[in-house]
Amino acid sequence: MREVALIGAGMTRFGDRMDKGARELFSEAFEEALGSVDRGLDRGEIELAYVGNQGIGGGQLGLISTLVAEAAGLTGIGAARIESACASGTYALIAAATAIAAGVCDVALAGGVEKIREISGREVRGWMGTSGNIEWERLAGLTFPGVYAMAAVRHMDAFGLRKEQLAMVAVKNHENGSLNSKAHLRNRVTLDQVMASPTVCHPLGVFDCCPTSDGGSAVILAAAEVASRYTDRPVYLAGFGTGTDSLAVSNRADLLSLGAVVRAAQNAYGMAGIGPRDVQVAEVHDCFTIAELISYADLGFCDRGEAQGMIERGETRVGGRIPVNTSGGLKSKGHPIGATGCAQVYTIFKQLRGEAGPVQVDGAEIGLTHNVGGFGGSAAVCVFRRSR
Amino acid sequence: MREVALIGAGMTRFGDRMDKGARELFSEAFEEALGSVDRGLDRGEIELAYVGNQGIGGGQLGLISTLVAEAAGLTGIGAARIESACASGTYALIAAATAIAAGVCDVALAGGVEKIREISGREVRGWMGTSGNIEWERLAGLTFPGVYAMAAVRHMDAFGLRKEQLAMVAVKNHENGSLNSKAHLRNRVTLDQVMASPTVCHPLGVFDCCPTSDGGSAVILAAAEVASRYTDRPVYLAGFGTGTDSLAVSNRADLLSLGAVVRAAQNAYGMAGIGPRDVQVAEVHDCFTIAELISYADLGFCDRGEAQGMIERGETRVGGRIPVNTSGGLKSKGHPIGATGCAQVYTIFKQLRGEAGPVQVDGAEIGLTHNVGGFGGSAAVCVFRRSR
Repeated sequence: MREVALIGAGMTRFGDRMDKGARELFSEAFEEALGSVDRGLDRGEIELAYVGNQGIGGGQLGLISTLVAEAAGLTGIGAARIESACASGTYALIAAATAIAAGVCDVALAGGVEKIREISGREVRGWMGTSGNIEWERLAGLTFPGVYAMAAVRHMDAFGLRKEQLAMVAVKNHENGSLNSKAHLRNRVTLDQVMASPTVCHPLGVFDCCPTSDGGSAVILAAAEVASRYTDRPVYLAGFGTGTDSLAVSNRADLLSLGAVVRAAQNAYGMAGIGPRDVQVAEVHDCFTIAELISYADLGFCDRGEAQGMIERGETRVGGRIPVNTSGGLKSKGHPIGATGCAQVYTIFKQLRGEAGPVQVDGAEIGLTHNVGGFGGSAAVCVFRRSR
Repeated sequence: MREVALIGAGMTRFGDRMDKGARELFSEAFEEALGSVDRGLDRGEIELAYVGNQGIGGGQLGLISTLVAEAAGLTGIGAARIESACASGTYALIAAATAIAAGVCDVALAGGVEKIREISGREVRGWMGTSGNIEWERLAGLTFPGVYAMAAVRHMDAFGLRKEQLAMVAVKNHENGSLNSKAHLRNRVTLDQVMASPTVCHPLGVFDCCPTSDGGSAVILAAAEVASRYTDRPVYLAGFGTGTDSLAVSNRADLLSLGAVVRAAQNAYGMAGIGPRDVQVAEVHDCFTIAELISYADLGFCDRGEAQGMIERGETRVGGRIPVNTSGGLKSKGHPIGATGCAQVYTIFKQLRGEAGPVQVDGAEIGLTHNVGGFGGSAAVCVFRRSR
């Protein structure tokens, strides 16, 4: 398998983007990615594009990949949309990387876009709820806040998790996001504010939930053997893995772990030849505060039941043992479904190039992204390295 | 790049499938594919699945790939949905093959499913129309029958194409489809019947248009180096290519050719190291009769303007120079959007293994599939060989 490098990355500001449609958002992210290629890249060198998108809003239910490729000045290249719910973007990155690894092409584009804010909350719930089990669970009223809340209650029961510890995730991620000019919610929040926020589903309050956002992201990948044409500072995709699980939560063994993530992480670590304790910076899928805590053990950053201790001790803050969501995460930066995966990669790209500004993790050599579809109905994990 | 082989393939009967939902249709196709693996395959050996699906009907707008993987007894594997409108299925096949070619896995599944018949014709038009340019052309009333009809008129003007010659495509494909127990429309039609069918958009009548169908399809792929574990009769994926074009037809240079197909075919032939005149049997995307004729020249089976002569002389009938759509094509077999690509591959798999029954092309060594999204907004072409 040929080694794959990232040579450029871009993302839009996330949030209410009534100023732009899906194609303009994708283009905005792509132009930043193109501009970030140190020695420049002729867009004609890009041979293939995979676009993460769930199709929420916008009304383009077919060929949005053709539309955004055209908008990016790439008319003619092979392009397809990839959907695995909220994990769509990372699946797109993996598909593009795989094409390079196989030798199908030397340079490819992965990205994502979602335009959600223009449709009603009711419509958003309709779209997003269908990423769960419709027949038995969705119709019985089990929404995503509901199932993540159930997982939080199970953690309280099994490990003595406290609501304050959930709130600490929000406080940390808003603190990081307040420093990110592209974040949707840039306000800092206090522990008291999170604790007092209106309950969505016990024990999760409004401030335990990420917002739904508009946004786009783009990553330009090249075969490692040609990357030096474009930059002396590529970031290598050292490993990746994917997994799924029974869509119906009622079929799962427990609510303390997401099997899809465990499988994806094992594959990614195996391919990269590293272990979880080698990871120095990570972007994880904190669609709810409990989701970030579940990820710590599923990714092997700590033992099962130890996640609450990690957040309490500040181990995942900037300056801690393994900073998590230095971008603000989904919680503060926002969550435009199909764009989230490549936006996580954008952050790790910046971190490993030493361009992360006030949230830079000193000397970061190895980074990870963790992207989850639904309540672990799907997952994708990538490991990145600064050196080959 | 590792060589890739097909070791099994299956498809459901296409048509009104009110008896089954998407997951059951996918499973039905998968079980046939699994059963067709000569020495058997433990489903645990399948590591990855890509599923072609546009999401039309059924209401599963996220994670249908997780759902159908689970239904097929593959819970846990990495799985994603791929959408490039009507070309989704072939893009899924190419993504799965690419993963094997790269060495990400040894055995992968590609397939597709669509459940259309349970929604209204109005809803179907809403879904399918969005695979065109919404802002300028769809809102102006340009449907897919409309744009293909415009292309037919252009061919009449440029090359003297006659309506009878369009009708000959329908007659041929229904004749083939009448012998296919899985075809949606198994009735033979006469030239007079097609000519007299009610006009949809001049010069296309109802019998120039394919039906919308329910259905599923599945192909099991393996690295060529391990294929002998499973069968002595693999079919090799010798080459593939993809392409897109400006989504707005008003931006195209002309209506006589689909640039996405030309690009995809060039790439596929180049990878396979063959030319168009080496192809002995082909399944092409005849969503309308004119679409099949456009494909003849775009694929290089004849020179521009010669397609009408090919159909008139019977060169693409079974027994002709290069039989096209021996399955009945989309026109007679049916067109369940996401399932179409891998169903075309199913037919070529059968042909190259000598299992095509009454429509068998004697001694077929090289076959081709041609799958188009929208009016050439996207395309994917694959070349298959019986021998390595």
